[in-house]
Amino acid sequence: MNSLKPNQVLVRTLYLSCDPYSRMRLSESQGGFVASFVPGEPIDSFGVGIVEASTSTKFSEGDLVTGGSFLWETRFILSENDITKVPSDTGISPANYLGVLGMPSFTAYVGFVSICHHKAGETILVSAASGAVGQMVVQLAKARGLRVIGAAGSDDKVEFVKGLGADDVFNYKTCGSLQETVKKAAPQGIDIYFDNVGGEFLDAALENMRMNGRIVACGKVSQYNATPETVYHTKNMDIVDINNITIYDFFILDHYSRPVYKAFIDEVSASFKKGDIQYKLDEIVGLENAPQALLDLFEGKNFGKRVVKVSDL
Amino acid sequence: MNSLKPNQVLVRTLYLSCDPYSRMRLSESQGGFVASFVPGEPIDSFGVGIVEASTSTKFSEGDLVTGGSFLWETRFILSENDITKVPSDTGISPANYLGVLGMPSFTAYVGFVSICHHKAGETILVSAASGAVGQMVVQLAKARGLRVIGAAGSDDKVEFVKGLGADDVFNYKTCGSLQETVKKAAPQGIDIYFDNVGGEFLDAALENMRMNGRIVACGKVSQYNATPETVYHTKNMDIVDINNITIYDFFILDHYSRPVYKAFIDEVSASFKKGDIQYKLDEIVGLENAPQALLDLFEGKNFGKRVVKVSDL
Repeated sequence: MNSLKPNQVLVRTLYLSCDPYSRMRLSESQGGFVASFVPGEPIDSFGVGIVEASTSTKFSEGDLVTGGSFLWETRFILSENDITKVPSDTGISPANYLGVLGMPSFTAYVGFVSICHHKAGETILVSAASGAVGQMVVQLAKARGLRVIGAAGSDDKVEFVKGLGADDVFNYKTCGSLQETVKKAAPQGIDIYFDNVGGEFLDAALENMRMNGRIVACGKVSQYNATPETVYHTKNMDIVDINNITIYDFFILDHYSRPVYKAFIDEVSASFKKGDIQYKLDEIVGLENAPQALLDLFEGKNFGKRVVKVSDL
Repeated sequence: MNSLKPNQVLVRTLYLSCDPYSRMRLSESQGGFVASFVPGEPIDSFGVGIVEASTSTKFSEGDLVTGGSFLWETRFILSENDITKVPSDTGISPANYLGVLGMPSFTAYVGFVSICHHKAGETILVSAASGAVGQMVVQLAKARGLRVIGAAGSDDKVEFVKGLGADDVFNYKTCGSLQETVKKAAPQGIDIYFDNVGGEFLDAALENMRMNGRIVACGKVSQYNATPETVYHTKNMDIVDINNITIYDFFILDHYSRPVYKAFIDEVSASFKKGDIQYKLDEIVGLENAPQALLDLFEGKNFGKRVVKVSDL
């Protein structure tokens, strides 16, 4: 307690979140939406933990808390403003506050429900469809009456995405021409492409977009390790003009203070508890394994939403 | 009159419009927003003409009319549904129904006023700023309190755009690095890029976009003559994610039936008559010169909105 300043909390880490956006923070700042990590300082991410000591009137010992600035340490001190209490009566496991109710799942919700102007009967293509964001987009889109085409990077992942209800799923590593595979899955074209990977996949999607199509530029995991020499150059930007395409990007932190956040928590936690929504966590055990757990994301080695378990509840 | 079926009109052509979108119609259909031209048939475009004969109750001999399906002929027959009467008491010359009140000017209005969520004090970059669309974007943006950076392809054009009120204008052909030139003109970055050219310029703009920036993908005139071998590949699509950029495209014909069309006509015709808006026409004389007049657009040989005069009022 002696080391706590006023309005601070000592947190013991339960789970840390591995998310592709952290890769940007490992580079020098490009003026983007998150600050770069400081060499020599611990990195941080979303996480879930237990309050072990508190000088804040808002938190007590034993509270389950979450936040976006959890240090990659077993215990750390944060300001009361950097954490949020997790309700203990929800029947949702702590790791799922990084999973089905976590930032990537909320990203799927905002991108699909608020951003892309979907209509029942439309066709949506989802890349990285078994991933932290993709698996939720697939289920939200099916629940709202869209035809869903998924892409994933192994046969196991393909089966998982089919099990989520997707109408057509292919293995993008073994399918041959991406452009032809998408065309075969959607001969009439794609209305919405939910892009979690960028690169060549974006070009293949552009070639298959219908008039007035929409692209949610959610992530570009295929490109985060690229150098100026190896970064993919998009060939088909002319199709944006020809087919009247809108490309949306959004900053998920802008949406936590909006009504959509409550809508997300209400809808998704209810559906999850009823079993109408599944959510696959990919749990790695041990803080010492966290760096590799993060790097694996950029080779598609995760299967579902990757979290690192640091200690037991 | 004998050759007219019911509800048809014989039109004598006064002016035809040269617009970059016609280039797409010279290629085989890519499923885009306009049908390809049919080899052996006359091509068509926007135009202004005089009714010489009519079996329609809506049009009489001598009416001044405009429409988007004017054949590239001296006289032609159209259905009454394909033309609109031009009010004769406006004090606006017939060619300016293809100019300041024409489709490209309306495109500027919709793209800037309705689409890009501009705010006073923001910085907008406009490529092809002396062109049919660009010259109007520059003036609309200045009138609404934005800082305007223009790019044009000759020193004469640069002077013209400065005369429209732009804060900083450069010659993109002689400026050296586009990316550096934009950075120098906007050290704090660009909030809105109004893209009339595509290609390398889009990459240079992306490198200078501020957080939450918006790109209006209005045209890609630099790419319409490109082949699959020569088409420019966009390097900086990762910045869409990093800086939370939205790229908007729109189909101008969707907007003629909306309230924004009346707002455009009211605002722009009033401002033009008062002299608060200028609009530069680039008039080529003679139907026989029309094909070259169109092709010139793809080399930036027009200066202002190019029209072809076919006959005298």
